[in-house]
Amino acid sequence: MTSNEDVVVTDRGGIVENSHRVHVAVVDAKGSLRYALGNPTRMTLARSAAKPAQALAILETHGFERYGFDDADLALMCASHSSEERHIERTRTMLSKVRAEEADLRCGGHPSLSETVNRSWIKQDYTPTAVCSNCSGKHVGMIAGSRAIGAGVEGYHLPDHPMQVVVKRTIAELCDLEARDVKWGIDGCNLPTPAFPLDRLARIYAKLAAAADGNDAREDQSVRSTALARIFHAMARYPEMVAGEGRYCTVLMQAFKGAMIGKLGADASYAIGVRASDETRRLAADGALGISVKVEDGNVEILYAVVTEILEQLGIGSPDIRRQLATFHRPTRVNTMGVTTGGVSFPFKLRGFTPDGANLVSRP
Amino acid sequence: MTSNEDVVVTDRGGIVENSHRVHVAVVDAKGSLRYALGNPTRMTLARSAAKPAQALAILETHGFERYGFDDADLALMCASHSSEERHIERTRTMLSKVRAEEADLRCGGHPSLSETVNRSWIKQDYTPTAVCSNCSGKHVGMIAGSRAIGAGVEGYHLPDHPMQVVVKRTIAELCDLEARDVKWGIDGCNLPTPAFPLDRLARIYAKLAAAADGNDAREDQSVRSTALARIFHAMARYPEMVAGEGRYCTVLMQAFKGAMIGKLGADASYAIGVRASDETRRLAADGALGISVKVEDGNVEILYAVVTEILEQLGIGSPDIRRQLATFHRPTRVNTMGVTTGGVSFPFKLRGFTPDGANLVSRP
Repeated sequence: MTSNEDVVVTDRGGIVENSHRVHVAVVDAKGSLRYALGNPTRMTLARSAAKPAQALAILETHGFERYGFDDADLALMCASHSSEERHIERTRTMLSKVRAEEADLRCGGHPSLSETVNRSWIKQDYTPTAVCSNCSGKHVGMIAGSRAIGAGVEGYHLPDHPMQVVVKRTIAELCDLEARDVKWGIDGCNLPTPAFPLDRLARIYAKLAAAADGNDAREDQSVRSTALARIFHAMARYPEMVAGEGRYCTVLMQAFKGAMIGKLGADASYAIGVRASDETRRLAADGALGISVKVEDGNVEILYAVVTEILEQLGIGSPDIRRQLATFHRPTRVNTMGVTTGGVSFPFKLRGFTPDGANLVSRP
Repeated sequence: MTSNEDVVVTDRGGIVENSHRVHVAVVDAKGSLRYALGNPTRMTLARSAAKPAQALAILETHGFERYGFDDADLALMCASHSSEERHIERTRTMLSKVRAEEADLRCGGHPSLSETVNRSWIKQDYTPTAVCSNCSGKHVGMIAGSRAIGAGVEGYHLPDHPMQVVVKRTIAELCDLEARDVKWGIDGCNLPTPAFPLDRLARIYAKLAAAADGNDAREDQSVRSTALARIFHAMARYPEMVAGEGRYCTVLMQAFKGAMIGKLGADASYAIGVRASDETRRLAADGALGISVKVEDGNVEILYAVVTEILEQLGIGSPDIRRQLATFHRPTRVNTMGVTTGGVSFPFKLRGFTPDGANLVSRP
């Protein structure tokens, strides 16, 4: 198996059932690659894992203060929420803050990411609308940003709208890439969605975590660092806004109690920012870490398992924290009679690199 | 890309989103490999694609005639059905034919494979039970077989039960393998489920198709050939029993009007038997073909797309037939606002082999 073929394996009675190729990049606060699996520079559609970066573009328009958004609203702007009542209610309140209506939203309804919510919708014959979109917070944010830069709300979702031009510039800057090196598609919610090398996604989250570290220690932070720190703290403080009851992002951030943010992207991308601690300083000189993961085939159950495995291999998180993630790490494979039929295994070790890029060929 | 890395690709705005490794074996009626993708001898859990082989073991016990099953019952024994009313009703009738009750079944209920059925169950607060299992027909068949060989119904699902010993022998024989070369796990429905090289799954279906051909032409068929032909004809005649409204297996067999059987296995295996025709004679000297497919990561939407692509690359089926499969071949990738965001592509060509195993390095 070559270095580009790191896989997660599921088995049935010890026989390989499926395998899933995975790509991982772990970078330090300077963006240097420290650990990897698969192809850590795979050109990757970040999807909703890019939402904190999109939220930064909104924060920097000053529409955020003008319309009186708070940190829970900011967390919802970074969310792929479960369309629970609290998420829909907050979306409606945010719409009223920006003096817009549901009809102004350019996203559509869809089945909830929560099976519980879905079942209740089906029972009530309820047809989800735009405010139910898991991306509703981001969309209201884009409306606020559009107003703040004087561009008007009409067509806020289109690639050439001034607000999206701001988003494109902001994301390229966060990636430390030229704008032409970031590619764009159309997301499920109808906004432009960026693609860039996977390690750049880790770099964005390392910056978020490093800013949160710096925010505690320094008075002289740049305006951008202060905004990045605010996003980190908003997500960490309101994890239930970022996903929902029982969802991985929510459980992860609740378990890590402010030390980490984590965000899912559709089709199985994931990004994590880890604040400096003794655990992370063992792994990187300056402490803060960014982690990004992509499962090549888009399988989200496997994504959660491999993200949790990466944290274990890096030694991030206490046994108590790991217990809270155990059902995601090794999901039960039981059949319709409750008999265990197999399991999930991780036949790989993270490869380590020195800060100058030399390959350590070892786990942490 | 090496020969072991044939993939199906999904994109978003021309950017690769996901890729899925695929394995394909196309064999002639003698079991010789004629076309391949990926690893055509990948050790593969056939799951429900093995049901026609399990049904053969049941047919050969003579429990089938003793309990008065008909060909629609036989189709249901080969099914992964959608738990529609017609499937559940037939299961109950089959149970009464064999003088058993639902409590004798050793499978469990689960959400329907049909979203329509599922929604109606949720609306009614209905909890599916054993008769709703997509494998219910196979389970009643196993009860009939157990009774017919005098083994008793108790524990009919266990690997060491005499009925399962018969199944194991039958499947090894159909694969032309020693029993020790077939591996076994526990299926979702709680019965033993076999694993063997992927091309052997194609071989089983080539035998089913060749038997159906021979059945028309010859009076002197073996008992086994007659049984294999009966299974082929039952599936082809009652495609709505094998899956359900709008499901791929049903649509495929309806479209091919008796020229082909096709069967899904969970975690994305698929098998097809094609009767001899001018189309197949162009591909194999003796006409009948077996085709088996496994998507390495278990993605069933991609499976249906690649199976349809294989038929197109082999030139099997008229334009009219292909039109009926178009939505499976190139599933629409539209977002919550109905905007097309990308597509599915097949950057591979089937590799051809001569009957002596030499590589033709070409498509059909």
